[in-house]
Amino acid sequence: MTLADQPPAAALVFQTLLAHGPLTRAETGRRTGLSPGAVTKVVTPLLADGWIIELDEPAPRRATGRPATLIAVRGERARFIGVKATADQLIGVVTDLTARPLLTRRAALRSREVGTVVPAIARLVRRLRTAVDATALGGGSGGDGSIHSIGVTVAGDVDGSGGVVRYSPFLDWRQVPLARLLREAVGTPVVVENDVRALTVAEQWFGAGAGLSSFALVTVGAGIGCGLSVGGRVVSGAYGVSGEIGHLPLGGGDRVCGCGNTGCVEAVASTRAITEQAREATGDPGLTMAEAVRLAHGGDPAVRAVFARAGEALGLAIASVANLIGPERVIISGEGVASYDLFAEQVRTAFTAQAFGAAAACDLLLRPLPFEAWARGGAAVAAERLFAPTR
Amino acid sequence: MTLADQPPAAALVFQTLLAHGPLTRAETGRRTGLSPGAVTKVVTPLLADGWIIELDEPAPRRATGRPATLIAVRGERARFIGVKATADQLIGVVTDLTARPLLTRRAALRSREVGTVVPAIARLVRRLRTAVDATALGGGSGGDGSIHSIGVTVAGDVDGSGGVVRYSPFLDWRQVPLARLLREAVGTPVVVENDVRALTVAEQWFGAGAGLSSFALVTVGAGIGCGLSVGGRVVSGAYGVSGEIGHLPLGGGDRVCGCGNTGCVEAVASTRAITEQAREATGDPGLTMAEAVRLAHGGDPAVRAVFARAGEALGLAIASVANLIGPERVIISGEGVASYDLFAEQVRTAFTAQAFGAAAACDLLLRPLPFEAWARGGAAVAAERLFAPTR
Ligand SMILES: [Zn+2]
Ligand SMILES: [Zn+2]
Repeated sequence: MTLADQPPAAALVFQTLLAHGPLTRAETGRRTGLSPGAVTKVVTPLLADGWIIELDEPAPRRATGRPATLIAVRGERARFIGVKATADQLIGVVTDLTARPLLTRRAALRSREVGTVVPAIARLVRRLRTAVDATALGGGSGGDGSIHSIGVTVAGDVDGSGGVVRYSPFLDWRQVPLARLLREAVGTPVVVENDVRALTVAEQWFGAGAGLSSFALVTVGAGIGCGLSVGGRVVSGAYGVSGEIGHLPLGGGDRVCGCGNTGCVEAVASTRAITEQAREATGDPGLTMAEAVRLAHGGDPAVRAVFARAGEALGLAIASVANLIGPERVIISGEGVASYDLFAEQVRTAFTAQAFGAAAACDLLLRPLPFEAWARGGAAVAAERLFAPTR
Repeated sequence: MTLADQPPAAALVFQTLLAHGPLTRAETGRRTGLSPGAVTKVVTPLLADGWIIELDEPAPRRATGRPATLIAVRGERARFIGVKATADQLIGVVTDLTARPLLTRRAALRSREVGTVVPAIARLVRRLRTAVDATALGGGSGGDGSIHSIGVTVAGDVDGSGGVVRYSPFLDWRQVPLARLLREAVGTPVVVENDVRALTVAEQWFGAGAGLSSFALVTVGAGIGCGLSVGGRVVSGAYGVSGEIGHLPLGGGDRVCGCGNTGCVEAVASTRAITEQAREATGDPGLTMAEAVRLAHGGDPAVRAVFARAGEALGLAIASVANLIGPERVIISGEGVASYDLFAEQVRTAFTAQAFGAAAACDLLLRPLPFEAWARGGAAVAAERLFAPTR
């Protein structure tokens, strides 16, 4: 039996347990609005089929009444593989149903050609499967240790429902039906999603966004990305575009962006933009990002000003998200947060100045994540298709 | 029996009929994902209690099979009053369940004091009730002609779920529990909402947003407002703020906004901002908006440049919404669209230049609405609480 065969109330209970569990049956009923009878009707087959479990320790005894048993999602019920593809490497992770990483593997990419990348992902998937089978993780009884599905994430314009990479500048791909190609290569269902949206899905169900009515995830690094979660769903955009804060014209007029416009946030705040501006500021055309960070930490005023400008543009971009969507929280992540101390103050100042009224109450949360989190996002998207399919 | 007592599937069927009806039972099942049996189980009590009706004309006969009866929402089943409060007047409207306006009344406001405005709204509600009773609209059998509830809309920061006007600059109100005060005065349930969000609710269920996966409503006038609908719900913002495109810093650096920042869209594109800039451009300190429009239509280059600048800021703001949310459509409305021909080209040019990739495919729809539409928005919010309550 799959979760998708269950009635809508089962999905509701399962999602509630993911976000808020473990819960007693009574709490589950209160949070879902289901009657005690309806909860029992839903919980019984979920227990029988191993999607949820009863915990051994009962909930604390109330003043009156018997101790109530807690129920929770059974993470080991299904496993997923997540893969993130960049221009020069693949990173893959096996997770359980709650996107908990079980093991990780990396592979270098010799070329960005579709004909090279697809077989490389297939090989990585086989390595991950073999590694799972070779460990206690493999389980073995009843196929419990097998992989349910695979989620692949790439930067760019991705049609998640169709499984097509419409345009990825990093890979130089256009209209690549990646889900179909990969499914043919590995024989397991494959879903494809934009990498920032996938990370947002992981944060929504299993991370710093769990249980929030809305939040934004802003990623700072090679690009400036943003995922939005509203009402329990990550916003995908009617035409495939959403969360493009990198190209809001808040960066000042003198720098040209890769998109052709001037003044984009990405043109002053991406890793490359910061490096280029630091080179201009120091007159050293070979300066690296790491050296720029070191100079700024050492107090170099010209390089510090470069980071300050990046922070100001980011703060204005985050304020724009807060003013438009009003998220409960903005999570700030990505490789760039490693040097966040160099622009944190400017982010906060620009955000506070531009956030309108009560939007300034939005919680800004700095959240460093390991690079494998991008791959885990793919696994989270694959898991979400199982437990929260769209109508 | 109220709609709220019905199971969730009933709300789903009712909402589907509102957005897409009339439909056959089979089409209703396809669109909702409910089985034929489940549709029948839901439709029967809705028909019996008069929330929906079977239409006399059957759907066109298919090649095979009997003609299928169409079912539709029965608008006259419930009536609502919507009221919009501005600084100097009230406008009230009685609508049916589908927010169709049945009659309209206005009242001048002598003061913005809560102690004046609340009794004035109560008097307007009584006038509307009397007018309903005096016409054939009143019905009379079974209380069918009575008012189910009242929705009041005001500009500013409104806590819709709590019924509190947290801050309204136009009325100079802070923390006014308007829903409670008014309910005590009129004896009928009252809901309160921000005026732009209420107009967005009306467009979502009964207007140019019906059936769309997402859309934005941008209003141009005394302020620059924006309502967002994502996944069938108007975004309200975790802290009460959302859709504040008027204070995105896209207007250029030299003009100070009412919010204290420089460069806000509202500081160049609101009616007042346009008037002020036209006064500076012409050197005529007494120039009115109407005269500015006339001068621009007559070809005055300095005044035309003022409208052009407003259009450019609006286009950038709309592109920001498209880049962040990716709506299917942006509806442009508000009093300012009466002179939209003076800046339409700049809106389109700036939007196209700044929209990222496929976001430029977003449909920009100009939609002039009568001023009573603001009051109708209040009635739509009251109706939505009935047929689409939040959990
Ligand atoms: Zn750009
Ligand atoms: Zn402002």
